[in-house]
Amino acid sequence: MTANDYLTRLARRSEQVGSMLCLGVDPDPAALPAGFPAGVAGIERLATLLVEHAAPRAAAVKANVAFYEAYGSQGIAVLERIRRRLPPDLLFIADAKRGDIGSTAARQAVALLDELGADAVTLNPYLGVDAIEPFLERADRFAYVLCRTSNPSAGELQDLAVDGEPLYVRVARRVAEWAASRPRLGLVVGATAPDELAAVRLATPSLVFLVPGVGVQGGDLAAVQAHGPARAGPAAGRPGGGLLVNVSRGIAAAALAGADPAHSIEQAATDWSARLNATMGADHQRGG
Amino acid sequence: MTANDYLTRLARRSEQVGSMLCLGVDPDPAALPAGFPAGVAGIERLATLLVEHAAPRAAAVKANVAFYEAYGSQGIAVLERIRRRLPPDLLFIADAKRGDIGSTAARQAVALLDELGADAVTLNPYLGVDAIEPFLERADRFAYVLCRTSNPSAGELQDLAVDGEPLYVRVARRVAEWAASRPRLGLVVGATAPDELAAVRLATPSLVFLVPGVGVQGGDLAAVQAHGPARAGPAAGRPGGGLLVNVSRGIAAAALAGADPAHSIEQAATDWSARLNATMGADHQRGG
Repeated sequence: MTANDYLTRLARRSEQVGSMLCLGVDPDPAALPAGFPAGVAGIERLATLLVEHAAPRAAAVKANVAFYEAYGSQGIAVLERIRRRLPPDLLFIADAKRGDIGSTAARQAVALLDELGADAVTLNPYLGVDAIEPFLERADRFAYVLCRTSNPSAGELQDLAVDGEPLYVRVARRVAEWAASRPRLGLVVGATAPDELAAVRLATPSLVFLVPGVGVQGGDLAAVQAHGPARAGPAAGRPGGGLLVNVSRGIAAAALAGADPAHSIEQAATDWSARLNATMGADHQRGG
Repeated sequence: MTANDYLTRLARRSEQVGSMLCLGVDPDPAALPAGFPAGVAGIERLATLLVEHAAPRAAAVKANVAFYEAYGSQGIAVLERIRRRLPPDLLFIADAKRGDIGSTAARQAVALLDELGADAVTLNPYLGVDAIEPFLERADRFAYVLCRTSNPSAGELQDLAVDGEPLYVRVARRVAEWAASRPRLGLVVGATAPDELAAVRLATPSLVFLVPGVGVQGGDLAAVQAHGPARAGPAAGRPGGGLLVNVSRGIAAAALAGADPAHSIEQAATDWSARLNATMGADHQRGG
């Protein structure tokens, strides 16, 4: 652990804002406030509004790159500008769910970590460790591997039984093995599956979680509070326990309500930031 | 089946060029010919050379988007120009290995199928059918789902036993189920694992395969010829049996040898196109 590693910076920022809120900046062209331009200009305006009025309340910002890629090179240019607007102490996660053979994964890592300047990425485990390693070569960066996702068909593969345990638990254990020699790995575990979240925490007490699904997707916040924070390892006992809870549409949709989108977004971010109070992680540690 | 669906267009082009060669246009900045500019200009020049001198011998062109994303919005602009250079009868596959929750996968589909204009994409199965369906809504497009990949750690998850069969076979069966009501799905199966390729063909006689790994990765061409072509369904008995065999570095690396990169690339593409003669698929059907 160094002063500059990802988990240390995350703990510092979580403490500073008092929250484990991860702000999802995923501008949906179908949910732009009245008066916003259509197309790529509209998504840039909404993303900018989120960065200016919601990001100050967040421990990290996560951009799902698909919402920018949908506008081709122009959309990626928007994402590049949005990324440059973020202050250096605010961690930036490129939610890209990448993974490919090693030589290609190395180019994906250049794209997301070097060119876009992400502090962390999300990755898909299906290709094994070859697809993960190229993302772990930079000492100050981090990668979250998909374990149990938040979508309705998540269980179709992830719940299959492998030697008496679900595949997602096997993935969690495998990531913990990878992390033993490469301490820059965490897991994506959706809030929509509280029992699965508990099982993953039991299997991997020390891995940090990035948890989507608590907003529009209707995930279980109590389960996230109970099982989200790390119970061992470098993140345990720190503010937030290394946990990040993502809210995207739950905050962006506020822009559609009320006369002043900026104010509505700021209010929604303040509310979510308070609900995801970072002391929860530390309390959980102290409380047992 | 219509005159314009993907498998019909693929069969037409395979017959026309007499090959099931899929040309990988994945320009690697570490393998540029002497005199090429460094950076994004160099990769555009190499990609253009491949499109002009190798693509005429290929049934399809596959671009792994990571090689363009590594240069950010400028790199995606290169990919957009490369795509526009391809003639309409030459199928274009965006190798992106995407997959996300449904609302996000819908944006990925817009990015790759609408904005970039890909005829087909590659997808990751880990999130289940939610992540696949948004790519199947356009009647003339197609998606290849990762089944058994060509990288050394592919088996780490893919070979895990699920009810007595490997996960990759379960994935193949699941994709066949999805394809029953959505006949626009095939599989990615690497040539580096010939026994696994045979097992997948046995499990899914009618799904078409996109096979990477025969060039630099050292895959088994005889196994690809034996098990690659579809044995049932709409692609069986057509030229190539719906099979595409990808060669990327095996052709691009030719640019590094000899005084004339264009000539070397054309020669390598001609050689690979002949080795991957499309009548193989039909012969296999007739020969049993």
